[in-house]
Amino acid sequence: MRGGLRLVLASRSPQRDGLLRQLGIPFRTCVSRHEERGDLGGPSATVEGNARGKAAEVAARVHLAEREYILASDTVVVIDGRVLGKAGTEEEAAAHLRRLSGRTHEVYSGLCLKRGDEERCGHGVTAVTFREIGAGALARYVASGEWRERAGAYAIQGLGSAFIEAVAGDYFNVVGLPVRLLVDELVSLRVEPLQWLDAR
Amino acid sequence: MRGGLRLVLASRSPQRDGLLRQLGIPFRTCVSRHEERGDLGGPSATVEGNARGKAAEVAARVHLAEREYILASDTVVVIDGRVLGKAGTEEEAAAHLRRLSGRTHEVYSGLCLKRGDEERCGHGVTAVTFREIGAGALARYVASGEWRERAGAYAIQGLGSAFIEAVAGDYFNVVGLPVRLLVDELVSLRVEPLQWLDAR
Repeated sequence: MRGGLRLVLASRSPQRDGLLRQLGIPFRTCVSRHEERGDLGGPSATVEGNARGKAAEVAARVHLAEREYILASDTVVVIDGRVLGKAGTEEEAAAHLRRLSGRTHEVYSGLCLKRGDEERCGHGVTAVTFREIGAGALARYVASGEWRERAGAYAIQGLGSAFIEAVAGDYFNVVGLPVRLLVDELVSLRVEPLQWLDAR
Repeated sequence: MRGGLRLVLASRSPQRDGLLRQLGIPFRTCVSRHEERGDLGGPSATVEGNARGKAAEVAARVHLAEREYILASDTVVVIDGRVLGKAGTEEEAAAHLRRLSGRTHEVYSGLCLKRGDEERCGHGVTAVTFREIGAGALARYVASGEWRERAGAYAIQGLGSAFIEAVAGDYFNVVGLPVRLLVDELVSLRVEPLQWLDAR
């Protein structure tokens, strides 16, 4: 596998799957059974800790081929110094969106690349500014159901794109994977950007 | 068509098509035959002028239904005060990418919404920062052919995502449509964000 590296994606998220396909990185999926924790002492510790936990759970039961690494990630939304988790009900989704309306929040995505004892973890932070969300837009978005299973109760790559004024930093971090950080980590593993295409 | 509005997309770009689908805005496509001009006196004038030209060409031959608007757009990349157009050859693509490597450039996307004499034009600007692109990554990207038909010779939503360090502003503007501006213009046409979902 000249220049090669393959990933085992420890996530069921179609967004993370889509980002790896977009990058052309060869991978297979093995969904982690690790249970995400809501707060592990601040957003950075939370997303890195959850990513590390997911990677470890998969590592315990998957046999890795040569040059194969487990990739796990976790994303949270932070506003007013508080982590906004996934909403469980329509009321909670509406409350999250009302809090984000007309303001800038931060999205933290953690990443863990793991192979045996080798573990590389980190996180990216991206600022996202929302427009004011009126009552009609709020009701339509909640009715769409798109908020389910989404950190902060919105999907930037879906109907939620109608709410976005600006992004500052790694956009893909908001989708669910700190791509800039992932590429940096691969470089430190001696895999240049796009060199992974050779392994396909 | 309560709260309704439909668009006629004057573009063959799968990215623009994808962004309208993502937003859930009902539309049909009628590709403009207007020929893009490389420079109409600066980037803002160029992208707005080209968007206006594309919209006018479609307006001249399409019958619009009630509350239907033509949507045209144009995107250019600007660095060192110069518009980087689409690359025609592999050599030109490599030259564009070498110029963008390790630096911040600006992406201008113009928009024109047109219905009869009513015309709303504008543009968005987004800053994009590239990592350093080494010789191997450059060669692999050029070989991928993804640069063809792309302003600045890269696709941020494709393999080109491996080159991106950061974005500041409207990310979708870089994909090819100033979504924030589009939503603002629809609001000024009395269509609230997501109200277009009612017309589907």
